[in-house]
Amino acid sequence: MLIPVIMSGGAGTRLWPVSRRAHPKPFMQLADNETLMEKTLARALAVTGSSVVLTVTSRDYYFLTRDEYLKNTTAGITYEYILEPFGRNTAPAIALAALRLQAEYGGETKMLVMPADHLIADQKAFKTAVYEAEKIADTGQLVTFGVNPTHAETGYGYLLHGEKIADSNGYKLAAFEEKPDLETALKYLDSGDYRWNSGMFLFRVNDILQALATHAPDVYNSALEVWSAIEPEDELVELPAEEFSRCPSISIDYAVMEEAENCAMVSGDFGWSDIGSWKAIRELYESDATGNRIRGKGIMINSSDCFVQSDEGRIVAAIGVHNLVIIDTGDAVLVSDAEHSQEVKQVVSQLNLQQHESAIFHKTVHRPWGYFTVLEDANDCKVKRLVVKPGCVLSLQRHQRRSEHWTVVAGTARVRVGDEEFSLKANQSTYIPVDTMHRLENAEDEDLHLIEVQTGDYFGEDDIERFEDVYGRS
Amino acid sequence: MLIPVIMSGGAGTRLWPVSRRAHPKPFMQLADNETLMEKTLARALAVTGSSVVLTVTSRDYYFLTRDEYLKNTTAGITYEYILEPFGRNTAPAIALAALRLQAEYGGETKMLVMPADHLIADQKAFKTAVYEAEKIADTGQLVTFGVNPTHAETGYGYLLHGEKIADSNGYKLAAFEEKPDLETALKYLDSGDYRWNSGMFLFRVNDILQALATHAPDVYNSALEVWSAIEPEDELVELPAEEFSRCPSISIDYAVMEEAENCAMVSGDFGWSDIGSWKAIRELYESDATGNRIRGKGIMINSSDCFVQSDEGRIVAAIGVHNLVIIDTGDAVLVSDAEHSQEVKQVVSQLNLQQHESAIFHKTVHRPWGYFTVLEDANDCKVKRLVVKPGCVLSLQRHQRRSEHWTVVAGTARVRVGDEEFSLKANQSTYIPVDTMHRLENAEDEDLHLIEVQTGDYFGEDDIERFEDVYGRS
Repeated sequence: MLIPVIMSGGAGTRLWPVSRRAHPKPFMQLADNETLMEKTLARALAVTGSSVVLTVTSRDYYFLTRDEYLKNTTAGITYEYILEPFGRNTAPAIALAALRLQAEYGGETKMLVMPADHLIADQKAFKTAVYEAEKIADTGQLVTFGVNPTHAETGYGYLLHGEKIADSNGYKLAAFEEKPDLETALKYLDSGDYRWNSGMFLFRVNDILQALATHAPDVYNSALEVWSAIEPEDELVELPAEEFSRCPSISIDYAVMEEAENCAMVSGDFGWSDIGSWKAIRELYESDATGNRIRGKGIMINSSDCFVQSDEGRIVAAIGVHNLVIIDTGDAVLVSDAEHSQEVKQVVSQLNLQQHESAIFHKTVHRPWGYFTVLEDANDCKVKRLVVKPGCVLSLQRHQRRSEHWTVVAGTARVRVGDEEFSLKANQSTYIPVDTMHRLENAEDEDLHLIEVQTGDYFGEDDIERFEDVYGRS
Repeated sequence: MLIPVIMSGGAGTRLWPVSRRAHPKPFMQLADNETLMEKTLARALAVTGSSVVLTVTSRDYYFLTRDEYLKNTTAGITYEYILEPFGRNTAPAIALAALRLQAEYGGETKMLVMPADHLIADQKAFKTAVYEAEKIADTGQLVTFGVNPTHAETGYGYLLHGEKIADSNGYKLAAFEEKPDLETALKYLDSGDYRWNSGMFLFRVNDILQALATHAPDVYNSALEVWSAIEPEDELVELPAEEFSRCPSISIDYAVMEEAENCAMVSGDFGWSDIGSWKAIRELYESDATGNRIRGKGIMINSSDCFVQSDEGRIVAAIGVHNLVIIDTGDAVLVSDAEHSQEVKQVVSQLNLQQHESAIFHKTVHRPWGYFTVLEDANDCKVKRLVVKPGCVLSLQRHQRRSEHWTVVAGTARVRVGDEEFSLKANQSTYIPVDTMHRLENAEDEDLHLIEVQTGDYFGEDDIERFEDVYGRS
């Protein structure tokens, strides 16, 4: 039995302004309008044939992830989740995933660990590699997936292959090297003996737990403590913050793979990319005759080899520029030389230092019940478009410093204002005075769209008193 | 008597996306938050000492111009206007301005013709030049203003100076040259005998009319016909379209200045610029240590000599780029190499070909009564913020394909819906059903702000049936 374990944690700040902490990289649309999350799930199901998928993520991303998974129509899949209260790097996450799979499916179960935000172009080649890895894992090895390097990348770790493993296309792992400097990376590339560490792993549950107990007992023991504090009856397991905070924050590479003797490697060319920069995203688009790649509305004059992404209908015009990445979003524009696109992290750092909203949030904010887009955020009012998914209901709530005017523009709303309950159809409106209990619900089969005009003197998200909330936020 | 004649016609497409036909260059804010229109008026009053200003513009720009002039607090100024139904270049405009001044103030009156969209940094030097020009005009000369060239510009016409005029700092004009090619421009620059043609003129009304009658009789006669068709009792003269359409479209340079013998030139260094490109706008801002100039919110990483203008609160982040102009507006972003910024015209041409709104309109649209900003323009609704100036009233109107929901967020509205009239204060709202007469008025002393949510299936500006309109639009 091989079960995919999808790890979805990082914020992907190198893809700002599209990827932000509140809606990070795994959820952004790529060239084909699919998300990495969606693709990772499809790949996980296809290469393992499993009817169970275990996802390790955070409470913040749970609803977003679930919505992505809903796009997959494969019947009879059980989606299991481990929700972390905060990030602790990959070793504790893998330890807890292993403990959970051990309890549910037994220690002989194999797990395929896959980050949610990688792209694999050649799924057939990857499936072959997984098949090889599975055979090797059956002999008690911890299998890594190496990628044939195409250049002296300093942003990845490297795997040095050892002797070939009999009756397989795999190798013993001779060394596990952290991100090198350029000189070392060039040496690795020249030698032909090194592979990029893709960050994917395949091993038996018992084997990784044994390796953790041997090489990282602090991780192992703290994970055991976390596990003993929960009762995993549900498909959704929320890790207790206090116990989880005692897990050391350490990667599985550093905790286990660099130490253990029983490591192996399967390598291949399966079109792997960690989509770690806008330059990598650019490669996913077809270029025109001048090398420009455009998503959205772009007008290019005497410009070449540029990538334009404009997702909100705004026009991007470029004149006399070359090899630029121009990313337009509702509240921020990025203009970067493609060769410098890794430095986007510095922009996000500066925005974080300034506590600027755009470091974390978009103008469109996702909620368990749907999403809202801020159309206007001024001193005298805030205007939003709210979209409520079928069957969803917002919390019963009230505000101390703002009134709200709702106008339905599509669908039908079920509304409670004070003690009254009524329906609002398109082109009908209502008013929620300050300090009045209210609730919005979409009991129909189609999305409900409404325009909310808030008036008052403060419009922050913290002026929401929640009384009943089906998503556990009250 | 010297009267300034301010000519305000062109759309300034080289400064797209900020300058657009509906709100062009003279009305855009510069580094000091003043507009060129505002500056031109202040300069006109300061250098002439006149208590009359005649402006030749179009109906579309009349209210915008009046609003700019209202910012000037000089007491006792009479603002006169000639409104063209469409552009016919400068010769007919100057002819009609001269005819009007002749009728009102006599043929000995001198006129100082100033385009509305030029910048003059050294007003004192300019005042000296105007003083010199006035003396020369008193001898029957048509005086041009030459600017000492600093480079071989191919975008301007050139003036060749002849012999010095006795008792003045002016020269006879030896030749009037149209925009040269680069080779010729370099020759002009080397010779030291040429000046840039600034497009400003000073002459007596009788002299320019005489010159027009002699060298451009078709312009002169058609202007006379236009003039005889109107009764200029008002400070506001609207030219009749039929008669005006018979005026040839020709510049005063070509019609008169290249032909007449009695042309002179006063030249100087008064810091003149026609602000003909974003590169020129950039020079108006102070640079930081890396040569970057920023209006709005910019984050610059490893970038230099860039100009960023972001007027709507959006963040512009630049990485590893140099000598770029990045202009952000509500619905369009321009990224241009500074040396290519003249090519913005090509972008506007493409947008015009595609009949794209952003070639002409902004998200904020100015109206005689104030302005509105489009916050959302979707299939199911359109949302606007309307700002109505004190004492202003919108037309009595109705729509066939949309209903409107109004929520006042600041100020007080006087509203008519059907046969009812009532007031709405901040945080109050009302509903205007489809096919219902309505009117919005601000009878108070402060701006009225309201959010309008339109619902229906069509939201174009052409679904407005106007019944009574104080601005003559019904």
